[in-house]
Amino acid sequence: MAVSPIKVGVVGATGYTGVELLRLLSQHPAAQLQLVTSRAEAGTPVSQLFPSLRGHCDLSFVEPDMDALAEQCDAVFFATPHGVAMHSVPALMGRGVKIIDLSADFRIKDRAVWEAAYGEPHACPELLSTAVYGLPELFREPLAGAELVACAGCYPTAVQLGFAPLLERQLVANDSLIANAASGLSGAGRQAKIGMLLAESAENFQAYGVGTHRHTPEIAQGLTALSGQPTTLTFVPHLIPMIRGIHATLYAKPLETLAADEWHQVFVQRYADEPFVDVLPQGVCPQTRHVRGTNRCQLNVHYVENTQTLVVTSVEDNLTKGAAGQAVQIMNALFGLPEITGLNGAAVAP
Amino acid sequence: MAVSPIKVGVVGATGYTGVELLRLLSQHPAAQLQLVTSRAEAGTPVSQLFPSLRGHCDLSFVEPDMDALAEQCDAVFFATPHGVAMHSVPALMGRGVKIIDLSADFRIKDRAVWEAAYGEPHACPELLSTAVYGLPELFREPLAGAELVACAGCYPTAVQLGFAPLLERQLVANDSLIANAASGLSGAGRQAKIGMLLAESAENFQAYGVGTHRHTPEIAQGLTALSGQPTTLTFVPHLIPMIRGIHATLYAKPLETLAADEWHQVFVQRYADEPFVDVLPQGVCPQTRHVRGTNRCQLNVHYVENTQTLVVTSVEDNLTKGAAGQAVQIMNALFGLPEITGLNGAAVAP
Amino acid sequence: MAVSPIKVGVVGATGYTGVELLRLLSQHPAAQLQLVTSRAEAGTPVSQLFPSLRGHCDLSFVEPDMDALAEQCDAVFFATPHGVAMHSVPALMGRGVKIIDLSADFRIKDRAVWEAAYGEPHACPELLSTAVYGLPELFREPLAGAELVACAGCYPTAVQLGFAPLLERQLVANDSLIANAASGLSGAGRQAKIGMLLAESAENFQAYGVGTHRHTPEIAQGLTALSGQPTTLTFVPHLIPMIRGIHATLYAKPLETLAADEWHQVFVQRYADEPFVDVLPQGVCPQTRHVRGTNRCQLNVHYVENTQTLVVTSVEDNLTKGAAGQAVQIMNALFGLPEITGLNGAAVAP
Amino acid sequence: MAVSPIKVGVVGATGYTGVELLRLLSQHPAAQLQLVTSRAEAGTPVSQLFPSLRGHCDLSFVEPDMDALAEQCDAVFFATPHGVAMHSVPALMGRGVKIIDLSADFRIKDRAVWEAAYGEPHACPELLSTAVYGLPELFREPLAGAELVACAGCYPTAVQLGFAPLLERQLVANDSLIANAASGLSGAGRQAKIGMLLAESAENFQAYGVGTHRHTPEIAQGLTALSGQPTTLTFVPHLIPMIRGIHATLYAKPLETLAADEWHQVFVQRYADEPFVDVLPQGVCPQTRHVRGTNRCQLNVHYVENTQTLVVTSVEDNLTKGAAGQAVQIMNALFGLPEITGLNGAAVAP
Repeated sequence: MAVSPIKVGVVGATGYTGVELLRLLSQHPAAQLQLVTSRAEAGTPVSQLFPSLRGHCDLSFVEPDMDALAEQCDAVFFATPHGVAMHSVPALMGRGVKIIDLSADFRIKDRAVWEAAYGEPHACPELLSTAVYGLPELFREPLAGAELVACAGCYPTAVQLGFAPLLERQLVANDSLIANAASGLSGAGRQAKIGMLLAESAENFQAYGVGTHRHTPEIAQGLTALSGQPTTLTFVPHLIPMIRGIHATLYAKPLETLAADEWHQVFVQRYADEPFVDVLPQGVCPQTRHVRGTNRCQLNVHYVENTQTLVVTSVEDNLTKGAAGQAVQIMNALFGLPEITGLNGAAVAP
Repeated sequence: MAVSPIKVGVVGATGYTGVELLRLLSQHPAAQLQLVTSRAEAGTPVSQLFPSLRGHCDLSFVEPDMDALAEQCDAVFFATPHGVAMHSVPALMGRGVKIIDLSADFRIKDRAVWEAAYGEPHACPELLSTAVYGLPELFREPLAGAELVACAGCYPTAVQLGFAPLLERQLVANDSLIANAASGLSGAGRQAKIGMLLAESAENFQAYGVGTHRHTPEIAQGLTALSGQPTTLTFVPHLIPMIRGIHATLYAKPLETLAADEWHQVFVQRYADEPFVDVLPQGVCPQTRHVRGTNRCQLNVHYVENTQTLVVTSVEDNLTKGAAGQAVQIMNALFGLPEITGLNGAAVAP
Repeated sequence: MAVSPIKVGVVGATGYTGVELLRLLSQHPAAQLQLVTSRAEAGTPVSQLFPSLRGHCDLSFVEPDMDALAEQCDAVFFATPHGVAMHSVPALMGRGVKIIDLSADFRIKDRAVWEAAYGEPHACPELLSTAVYGLPELFREPLAGAELVACAGCYPTAVQLGFAPLLERQLVANDSLIANAASGLSGAGRQAKIGMLLAESAENFQAYGVGTHRHTPEIAQGLTALSGQPTTLTFVPHLIPMIRGIHATLYAKPLETLAADEWHQVFVQRYADEPFVDVLPQGVCPQTRHVRGTNRCQLNVHYVENTQTLVVTSVEDNLTKGAAGQAVQIMNALFGLPEITGLNGAAVAP
Repeated sequence: MAVSPIKVGVVGATGYTGVELLRLLSQHPAAQLQLVTSRAEAGTPVSQLFPSLRGHCDLSFVEPDMDALAEQCDAVFFATPHGVAMHSVPALMGRGVKIIDLSADFRIKDRAVWEAAYGEPHACPELLSTAVYGLPELFREPLAGAELVACAGCYPTAVQLGFAPLLERQLVANDSLIANAASGLSGAGRQAKIGMLLAESAENFQAYGVGTHRHTPEIAQGLTALSGQPTTLTFVPHLIPMIRGIHATLYAKPLETLAADEWHQVFVQRYADEPFVDVLPQGVCPQTRHVRGTNRCQLNVHYVENTQTLVVTSVEDNLTKGAAGQAVQIMNALFGLPEITGLNGAAVAP
């Protein structure tokens, strides 16, 4: 690498999106981990908490300190639960640092909608309009020059990538969209909750938050932008007894009469130039395992003749394309690197 | 037991519905296993193939012989793959034996529909109208006096039980029904297929047969009977990385304006007298693990306000209420026993 | 049931051994659940916390109250973590109640050993000699007339049943015994610990507590009783990415020269009359799934010729034969019922 | 890369070690996949069979043809089941190609031992002495200049790396070694076997091949070389309900009296310069997930005071360090590259 590396800080790196960020950044050819913070684990070597990083990251966690981050880093990632970044980001603004927030704090433009969804006042609502929504394949232009990026959520990424080719061209009705989605348990975070114990969640499948999940307004905001019309959806998430992976099954009513292969072509063409969105051959259903640990979304569209319904199936790794990978992709974009830099690994399968 | 037991034969007992039948029947207080057949395993002790049955079943598999079954049994179960029972059932008809087919051979009334779905000529189409469809909670009356019962399929049971309260009372539109369902891998049968290896299917989630699954016409036939109008649906099944359990997430558009608790009451009242259908308290999502190994369907209805959509979530054990348990429930009904006889076990959870 | 049922109380029924006890007792033909206690969940219906028990148990949790238990119950089970029962049991002694403790509080006779293993003073050391160790197949006689029984631990049950036929007859050296055991995660209890999350423990295998696990002195005490000589062992437990099941692989050096089938006969004869210990045919390895949810231990012995080593493989369900099932078996024995009463279910397999 | 890449052929690339090789080689900075063969899948695009390789490998499978391989490749890997390579390797010898066999065909020096273990005559016994055993950390020297390398088996790698520091220095008795090992199911290969179905093997744990597994003579041969004395062991493998990972728990009797930290230092020093063998801090147990998809073995040694027994715990990914990764490491060594080239990825965890 001829030029000097991007110096990177990660705030709140003890969760699952945090350790995934550390994995990706420690192997990134143009980035260098500088500061890794955790209130709870300050002083602990990263590789003691995460033995998978032995030999890959020799830092220790430090207390979060916005001044140190601003002074030592070119880019700061927040891998914190929602409600944390919004208290710290203002202290970083205007100090020449790119801020990439993986949490939900800056994703929703409408303060009232955010506060209703997250049940607390927003700490810096004035930054909601400053923040750029980070889902490059759908909203790439505003990233140029952005200072603060709110990475799209895990479910919202899979769902919006699946609906986009249909909504951008007004090919489907926007009043009857359904997203039936399912996530592996790492999506619930590295927190001790009884319901997420293996003994509770293995050999089990269930829906949760039917119609009330916090990602619903984020998705609706994105679908509205894509379709150019007020758009919402019925969103029902489920838990899959596995670690990583999101699968979205999307339902839409076509407004035009196309043949199955024409619907397929709509998707192929839309994503022809996107390295991270992979439309499978007609008829093939995507499987979460084929994108595990990668920044890739694999998807397909199926036309169900007897009910004239379009079904889109879309998979991603919730921690990678749904979180840390997308954040690194955005860092690449912000620093003028090819988006694929450091993100070209193939899935470990089986 | 004062009266003599029901003497029972099981044809094709080496599959997963077979072994589940053997488990239930070997512990049934009013039944006695008489003959257990398998071409491939003739001569093998049942408990050698299935060590979980050591001390519970001391029979050995024998070659299938319809005369022996007719002479020695009061009831004969077919736990065979589709396409087998239709060749053997005619030889049992009229011989005083109740025939309970767990396969798909006699589920669909319309021969052309059956042949299109299963891709072969039906071997005894004249029996299609004789056979009674076995899903007691929805179609109990015709069971009285039936000689041949075609047990409902696994997905069709979960889906029809979920839609029935809405369709029977014409509370939802019947032209936009969606069933998004997911099954554990035992649903694929005890057959050596690469895709069903743990190394291929654990840590994975995928859809399959989008809009083309063979259960679609069976479900449509049932929904039509329930609603009294030609009704079909969009049916998308998925594979869950676990052994047992089906989860159906059903979507419907209401024709009437009810409050969430009124929708809930529709379900509570419909199933108030059904021991095997358990409507959960409002807001609680059913989990497959809570019905594992039982003949119970747990379900709930959720009203999604912002899109005015009804979502029904319904779980069952695909091998029990979705197959062997339902077959035993039907045997009980055919022989005048309380349907719950031998089927009252609680799920092993966790 | 002609006679009046055994009235039963369960203290601390919100854990995994608790819910397993409730499952077994709610279906027991001679027992009746009377009081189910939990400090944390007092007032909550049992079936709300455990939906698998809907329709099987209509009690609500109540605050633990030793007087109420003594007055209303014939038998009281403690399904509490270690360190709890020892504070409550004295208040129940001498009041005509059988006390069956599933925890570790009264398993070890030597107070100093107990205190070293559990790291706290014992609250009622005077009862250590009163308590009878509960593992009926090996120590049945002392159960007659016992007032307080300390059920054997999960690992100790599998390990002692495996070594007993060899040690009771002094067929192996007692100075080089090794127990390499592995348990499903329900063995860690229904407690929110990060290490037991599915996202941490699925697709993983590891040892823990090498040589230092608290069950070591309990096992050593049992092996000493069986062999009649001071005996200890190297005990290494592991975690299996599954819910239920313990597998023990035991290594011993023979003192006599027997052929493989003679070693097998030693085991067959030892357990010929035991309904819950099932010696498999020679050469067949036991599998945990075949005893899931049952009170059965399946085992086998293998003679490795080239190293002249005996290997015993032994499986049980850690929550059933390793805890709640054994406790019910002991209740049966204490009340003069056949030990198998209410415990004759076959495993749900697959 | 300044120099021209190593042109590589893979024979039998449709199995699990095959697809893992393709993953590693397609991302190797100094190798180029040239020919990928499969009799069964000739003509099929690699990425159709393995969608995880879409965009990473655009070859199609071709019929195996030794002349084409010899002419077009610098290195040929055999990722075939045992009994295949020995028929093809002779046709490649002496043609300037490095041959790296991942199967068992050339691992054992003694023809009679091989034939007894694998139950068939060896097709080219004259090459058994030519072949070099491939486990670089233990037997690095003979690799220099080797033409044919027999990569160590999956269990043998984990077991030998664990015992080596003790045996090389004669620190333990060599007549009472025990290896209790467990493997994820990908170790059974990508073959349709009922016992490997998820529905049979999830939620299950069992031993198999007690004392008779084919890897026993391979390990014994290695231990003999390490200790300089005829050495054998008791080897008991088990199946873990997960996809990838081997865990070996090794037992040995010390011949010298060292403290726990001194035993630890024996391991630390032995592997100080080995990038792929990582001795964990004292007291920490290795976990298979921390090496998933990597070429790393993590291990530790524990001294059990009360029985004066050494326990070594050792983990690896059976498909990577246990197969394909080791093969690539060997290719690197054969071509004068740093062994770590293309093998430096961190595990995807969680």
